[in-house]
Amino acid sequence: MSTERLIYLPLGGAGEIGMNAYVYGYGEPGKERLILVDLGVAFPDMDTTPGVDLIMPDISWLAERADQLEAIFITHGHEDHIGAVAHLYDRLNVPVYARAFTANLARRKMEERGHDPEKIITVSPYPEKLELGPFTVSAVPISHSIPESGGLLIDCPAGRVIHTGDFKIDHNPIVGEPFDPELWAEISKPGVKALVCDSTNVFSQHEGRSESELAPAITKLISEAPGMVAATTFASNVARVKTLAEAGERAGRSIVLLGRAMRRMIEASLETGVLTDFPKVIQVEEAQEIPRENLMLITTGSQGERRAATAQLARGKYRGMELKEGDLFLFSSKTIPGNEKGVIWIMNQFSEKGVDVVDDSSGLYHVSGHANGPDLEKMHEIVKPQMVIPMHGEHRHLRQHARLAEKKGMASAIAVNGMMMDLTGDAPKVADYIDTGRTYLDGSVKIGAMDGVVRDRIRMALNGHVVVTVIMDEDDEPLGEPWVDLKGVAETGASDAALVEIMEADLHQFVMRAGAKTLKDDDKLEQELRRIARNTANQEIGKKPEATIIVSRMR
Amino acid sequence: MSTERLIYLPLGGAGEIGMNAYVYGYGEPGKERLILVDLGVAFPDMDTTPGVDLIMPDISWLAERADQLEAIFITHGHEDHIGAVAHLYDRLNVPVYARAFTANLARRKMEERGHDPEKIITVSPYPEKLELGPFTVSAVPISHSIPESGGLLIDCPAGRVIHTGDFKIDHNPIVGEPFDPELWAEISKPGVKALVCDSTNVFSQHEGRSESELAPAITKLISEAPGMVAATTFASNVARVKTLAEAGERAGRSIVLLGRAMRRMIEASLETGVLTDFPKVIQVEEAQEIPRENLMLITTGSQGERRAATAQLARGKYRGMELKEGDLFLFSSKTIPGNEKGVIWIMNQFSEKGVDVVDDSSGLYHVSGHANGPDLEKMHEIVKPQMVIPMHGEHRHLRQHARLAEKKGMASAIAVNGMMMDLTGDAPKVADYIDTGRTYLDGSVKIGAMDGVVRDRIRMALNGHVVVTVIMDEDDEPLGEPWVDLKGVAETGASDAALVEIMEADLHQFVMRAGAKTLKDDDKLEQELRRIARNTANQEIGKKPEATIIVSRMR
Repeated sequence: MSTERLIYLPLGGAGEIGMNAYVYGYGEPGKERLILVDLGVAFPDMDTTPGVDLIMPDISWLAERADQLEAIFITHGHEDHIGAVAHLYDRLNVPVYARAFTANLARRKMEERGHDPEKIITVSPYPEKLELGPFTVSAVPISHSIPESGGLLIDCPAGRVIHTGDFKIDHNPIVGEPFDPELWAEISKPGVKALVCDSTNVFSQHEGRSESELAPAITKLISEAPGMVAATTFASNVARVKTLAEAGERAGRSIVLLGRAMRRMIEASLETGVLTDFPKVIQVEEAQEIPRENLMLITTGSQGERRAATAQLARGKYRGMELKEGDLFLFSSKTIPGNEKGVIWIMNQFSEKGVDVVDDSSGLYHVSGHANGPDLEKMHEIVKPQMVIPMHGEHRHLRQHARLAEKKGMASAIAVNGMMMDLTGDAPKVADYIDTGRTYLDGSVKIGAMDGVVRDRIRMALNGHVVVTVIMDEDDEPLGEPWVDLKGVAETGASDAALVEIMEADLHQFVMRAGAKTLKDDDKLEQELRRIARNTANQEIGKKPEATIIVSRMR
Repeated sequence: MSTERLIYLPLGGAGEIGMNAYVYGYGEPGKERLILVDLGVAFPDMDTTPGVDLIMPDISWLAERADQLEAIFITHGHEDHIGAVAHLYDRLNVPVYARAFTANLARRKMEERGHDPEKIITVSPYPEKLELGPFTVSAVPISHSIPESGGLLIDCPAGRVIHTGDFKIDHNPIVGEPFDPELWAEISKPGVKALVCDSTNVFSQHEGRSESELAPAITKLISEAPGMVAATTFASNVARVKTLAEAGERAGRSIVLLGRAMRRMIEASLETGVLTDFPKVIQVEEAQEIPRENLMLITTGSQGERRAATAQLARGKYRGMELKEGDLFLFSSKTIPGNEKGVIWIMNQFSEKGVDVVDDSSGLYHVSGHANGPDLEKMHEIVKPQMVIPMHGEHRHLRQHARLAEKKGMASAIAVNGMMMDLTGDAPKVADYIDTGRTYLDGSVKIGAMDGVVRDRIRMALNGHVVVTVIMDEDDEPLGEPWVDLKGVAETGASDAALVEIMEADLHQFVMRAGAKTLKDDDKLEQELRRIARNTANQEIGKKPEATIIVSRMR
């Protein structure tokens, strides 16, 4: 009997939304040949990752086995699937495969980071296939909220795996290929061992709606607007951008794309042919000459991103354009949890300008890009796999998705980041637990999530920071008095005198009384000074700041 | 003609949700006798107020005129209306009036802060009235998601004002008085000059639902649950707590209240008689002896608060109780924008334990406590005021509410914090702009929002903090080399050597080359050292940390 096995190991995206990275392997245990599906990012927030630029999966496990890795395959161009490729490429250094539109985006990213864009290889969709070690891989067109999403058909001696990538069931997605149930049935016919399947919308209990349902409502809204119209959506949702632009054009408006990502996505779509007809776009400079009621802006920043076009318009002028009383702003988007406050801030800024804001609360101006609960069941039904492995979702999504599958008699398992699953048998089983985690892009460097750097930032943000400086002379006697600097700490507390002075007096008293043994011992001295500084602060202001103690010795 | 005027001045709550504080005044300009309606708090977040404990309105304007202030009136016991009373009381020092339940809560708060609870005076509802200088004030029972909310009927020589406080139209609120349209019509009959009216739910386009609609669905859910049940809601929503407890009791479960606020609210309700029948509650110690399928926990922390009972249960055991595979957790609550991530974290923790989480996405297990758009129009219709002044809401809510009123021919105005409105004439007009702002409770001290303390914390959180120490000898020559400490800054960057060492070398090079003039000038020296430290960091790690420069001189 063969000792070779088929493994599945999520390094990101399983137990969270974002930062997708899934490893498949086939071979003898420990010697599997590997492929990596997706290498995405997640986005930081002030609560847990202040100051961080991007969050990426920790790929140490994979990097240590780079010689076993055959290739990376990117299913589609969303940042949470493609965003880390250029940042982590040099640790893996294998070919990166993607369909034309996705490859176009990936190449731009590689160029920006100084990597060779030729490492990105365009693949044609199914029935074309790639031989990657023991694997044969095809990208099967699947509908999603970005052009050219590819579900992966992965064959190996242990059987056939379908990795859906992110998808929805949309028979008329406007741009890109419609979902084709017959195609999925056809590729499933030989028998599918495992369906590794998107889970993000499993709690939505109605059938998903098609992108094509939006045009009438959007067109009506824009045609009835008396002033300038601006609308935002994810730039990568090319179909939506097209729907918005066409609605503007039909209302006799000239279209302006605002924001770098918006222009780049349309560019990539035209270059790769996923978009053939798109309304004429004018430059923002030309827009100055056109009456505002004949203009329509399509802007980046639907999630309230501070530097994007939408937020800049909310603050005031952006590239000469300004929204005013009687204008309309449309959020053709859903607010991702965590971004509510930023989006609401923008809505209120527009409200102060007298701009009418329309969002998705009516359900008329946005549809999701992910398969809802009933759609997932339909997919299970079409593919009829031996097992369903829920991927891309928080724990609660994976759990609910596993339940749906099990209810219908399919084997399933909740496999979160770091759980290596053996898919060789009739049901998934845990083969190993791998240390996984997060790598932060912080400025221009990569730091580990557990390095303590971000923890220290959070502590300073919560508690403030006090710096105590003491100079010790050649005889280890204090030279002058201790010196205190505060940052992010209240200046005055209970005693109504400056906290700095009270703290300096307490510290001075201590060093004057301390024995030679303490004064000579750096660790001991630091520890005592820290304790005193924090206790004094606690008495005065009811908080214990972080403390840095600097003991300078003249000896 | 009289020169006396009626003014309205929001100091908090108008242009935001939370932190309500509304001033009314009557008299000659500048000499008005004043009353303050509500004195609430808002809650901090990491994005804008890290480390802060509570946010309160800046009442400087009012404190400077404390001798003109007759009284404070608290409409109801929600924190955003009552929360700052005990913190700011000593700057105002006038009687505080409230209905019995609200007064009970306010007294506990006064005691906790060491103030005299007797400053809180219980008032009976309409038709009882208080004479407060030129004002006559009555608390008119109105339904809301807390017992004994009181809308205020405020008479003065300029006419009658109705200040709704927070409210909903609920004809069967389970606990507390139903909304009584005839009563509101009766008090409006003499003619109402201004309806100052809750705006938070103005965008909800359906009629509000009654608290009483929830019992069947909640009862069904709990009776069908196989294991332990826990449910959370706002502790102050006594009606909901009662509905939950009764549903538990009907399902043969013993009820345990977990969390201090939960027990305190039920206590206050029983003490003041707003609650007469409540299912028997057992102590958590007794619960250990009862089979889990016969238990129902009602817990604090519906907004994901880290220290509340819900979050503690999500992390593990809380007071001996633990949820397990097959148990049910119900969020009988809505997540307030900004709290999504905390709530989702809890849901995933429960998911990992195998606990089924049910939230409000079905609409079956929660109703709002605020009047929706159509309810507000109904209120306008009943009161038929000369003018509607929207209060309590973000700018977008106030604007939408003003529109509703204007469409029906009533005068209106968007009056945000600091806008003093003159209500004497037929329409509201701006009388003055007052400086307002926010005061933070930070540990045990109060700091101003613009003091720079919180700004420094945010900067340290985003950029980290570098401390540079230089010792200058008696001749203003550097004694030893500059010394660098990093906190919240990556340790290594582009050069692959320790950032501390590279920075110290750059700083050393600078001080060795610097002229005597620079070395003698503290400001100049600090400025240069800061520039170098930040530039070196920027080259190495692509970030410019905050910098504290400490120059110690031996002279």
